Amino acid sequence: MEKTLWKHVGRVREASPLVHNITNFVVMNNTANAVLAVGASPVMSHAHSEVEAMVGICGAVVVNIGTLDEYWAETMLRAAREAVRLCKPWVFDPVGAGATPYRDEVSAALLALRPTVIRGNASEIMAVATATANLATQNMRGSTPVTKGVDSTAESTEAIEAARRLSREFGSVVCVSGETDIIVSGERTVLVHNGSTLMTRVTGLGCSASAVTGAFVAVGGDTLEVVAAATALFAICGEIAAEDAPGPGTLQVALLDKLHNITGGEFAARLNIES
Amino acid sequence: MEKTLWKHVGRVREASPLVHNITNFVVMNNTANAVLAVGASPVMSHAHSEVEAMVGICGAVVVNIGTLDEYWAETMLRAAREAVRLCKPWVFDPVGAGATPYRDEVSAALLALRPTVIRGNASEIMAVATATANLATQNMRGSTPVTKGVDSTAESTEAIEAARRLSREFGSVVCVSGETDIIVSGERTVLVHNGSTLMTRVTGLGCSASAVTGAFVAVGGDTLEVVAAATALFAICGEIAAEDAPGPGTLQVALLDKLHNITGGEFAARLNIES
Amino acid sequence: MEKTLWKHVGRVREASPLVHNITNFVVMNNTANAVLAVGASPVMSHAHSEVEAMVGICGAVVVNIGTLDEYWAETMLRAAREAVRLCKPWVFDPVGAGATPYRDEVSAALLALRPTVIRGNASEIMAVATATANLATQNMRGSTPVTKGVDSTAESTEAIEAARRLSREFGSVVCVSGETDIIVSGERTVLVHNGSTLMTRVTGLGCSASAVTGAFVAVGGDTLEVVAAATALFAICGEIAAEDAPGPGTLQVALLDKLHNITGGEFAARLNIES
Repeated sequence: MEKTLWKHVGRVREASPLVHNITNFVVMNNTANAVLAVGASPVMSHAHSEVEAMVGICGAVVVNIGTLDEYWAETMLRAAREAVRLCKPWVFDPVGAGATPYRDEVSAALLALRPTVIRGNASEIMAVATATANLATQNMRGSTPVTKGVDSTAESTEAIEAARRLSREFGSVVCVSGETDIIVSGERTVLVHNGSTLMTRVTGLGCSASAVTGAFVAVGGDTLEVVAAATALFAICGEIAAEDAPGPGTLQVALLDKLHNITGGEFAARLNIES
Repeated sequence: MEKTLWKHVGRVREASPLVHNITNFVVMNNTANAVLAVGASPVMSHAHSEVEAMVGICGAVVVNIGTLDEYWAETMLRAAREAVRLCKPWVFDPVGAGATPYRDEVSAALLALRPTVIRGNASEIMAVATATANLATQNMRGSTPVTKGVDSTAESTEAIEAARRLSREFGSVVCVSGETDIIVSGERTVLVHNGSTLMTRVTGLGCSASAVTGAFVAVGGDTLEVVAAATALFAICGEIAAEDAPGPGTLQVALLDKLHNITGGEFAARLNIES
Repeated sequence: MEKTLWKHVGRVREASPLVHNITNFVVMNNTANAVLAVGASPVMSHAHSEVEAMVGICGAVVVNIGTLDEYWAETMLRAAREAVRLCKPWVFDPVGAGATPYRDEVSAALLALRPTVIRGNASEIMAVATATANLATQNMRGSTPVTKGVDSTAESTEAIEAARRLSREFGSVVCVSGETDIIVSGERTVLVHNGSTLMTRVTGLGCSASAVTGAFVAVGGDTLEVVAAATALFAICGEIAAEDAPGPGTLQVALLDKLHNITGGEFAARLNIES
């Protein structure tokens, strides 16, 4: 797989797919910039009056519940349904799942629409796995939250069983972000060891990675491999950006630069995956 | 005109007008920073409970439909109406017009309020010209979208006829952004050849240019010339910022710096316009 | 007090409190990044369906009315009430108070919930003091606005009497931002002389300072001293960041870096307070 990941980066740059992001207010700017930096084209739109029309012209949909409310939750469900109806890939990022019962309810409803990709940190992946399991037993409100807000309190390796369960139940590729990113599809697993701990001190880099993943699934191919390519690209660029960064401000700027100008040689020299 | 454009930059810095931006979630931060960097003062406010009051204390209003919804569309219409009632200039940026019928409907309703300035990329300008033409023949839903999301798929020169039509019909100065920015007022045309293609890889620079245009029309003067000044300033600063930028992250930061510290000498040395 | 302020910085880094920000769209990204940079953990959430639950898991709540509307105002009131009910500290930043009657109404309703900290520029502090005084005499609509949008038109020293009045009436620590930041608690006053005028050319640094203040009050201690620590940290980091910055773009990036990596030695060498 190491030898083929870079070609997906080139395909995104060439096809420049339109990615419909229904995401949170905190990260909209960075997310749009990350999608542009990898060569794709972002659009953000949430009005009930146009959500299906916008899904109709896009290559993929990304749903991120970071600042959800009742209006936006309806938008997200309608967008996911329309993506499913049109057989377009969609990515679900359950930001803050486990923090409140409401997030778990909305997450469970979205999961039922079988996301192409589920991408979150370990706490979130474990929370949505619990939420859907509890939903099945009518006991969701009794779940123990494992999330502290939107930052993970769990290690990504702890979440691997939850990821496998979600992948089996919903047919999704599941990406658990962390010091090692873990990508699961049924029984297959890919580990991406790139990245930098300084990335956790910049808000919304996980959200940006999910949006970039949307650009990659929009161009098609084996989903596990495509998600691994997006994940590795983002982690490698963050790793390079962090090396000379005195802090998170510079990291964020340098990451956008690197997503834009990274070469196949830089990518190959850094890539550290197990599959 | 070359000799007089810089004085408008000085007038904005001196007057520091208050600019009311009703804009999209993706670009609010950058837009506010761009307005501050040119020496003006931004305010963002959308509540129905205060929109007219806020228009009342501002020097100009900027309406940008990038992430519109039903509530915000009502805000935009009320703000534009109040600006018209108070004879205050207002700028319309029809982001993503042509992408969905809803955007075209809202755009047509806003255009009917005769914006002082209409500013968009070629796809958007052509889309709103088509939308208003179709509206006249009750056939809008049948229009062929020419927009791919929010990024232009047309060259700005293709849009010049659409711009002339909009200018004649609504009495607006129309600015078509692109590799060459084209500014049209009735039969008069100004071309601005400054800028950098890297600017298209940063989200919302067009939105920021529209907001800066709002600051310039707030201080008054011949509208065509004032819009040309704002357009040239933004393009020149982007051109300078792009020269040493390894990517879009750095460009965005350097552009804000340059909007703040550009001198008359730097401006004059770069200015490349035809009028 | 000079000798003890730094320990609060260390306590925030160690405890990494969760801070619930109900803030404006313009500054959400920077605010979240500032909270992360000082070592705390931000969450942003506004849905009526989860606001109380989110307050329940957080160490402090920050309410900022910069882009308020009817839905968000309800969220803010519910969050503040829940914070009071749970005896959690909450910070109120009355952005743009005085600009419209609606902002004054909502501000007065929030003040009645007795914020732990009120933090704003001189115009805003004077406006909310007037609004609450007028409310008492049923004459609020007749108040003379002293605010130009969201940027202060008054000197912070002019606001000191208003701050004292608010502190006495609501039991709050009041921080008036400006060239000198003034912190008032009853009869006690602390002046922080750090900072840079270039900071006023970056949008939302006041909002970020309020969010950082939320992180500091979340870890407890004498509130006046804790607010002074947060205020001094932010001002010192801005001062350092501004020194080599050619403009506001670089300042914003460098400020986040410095909030992350400032040392006790740098802090002590710069600290310039009177108490």
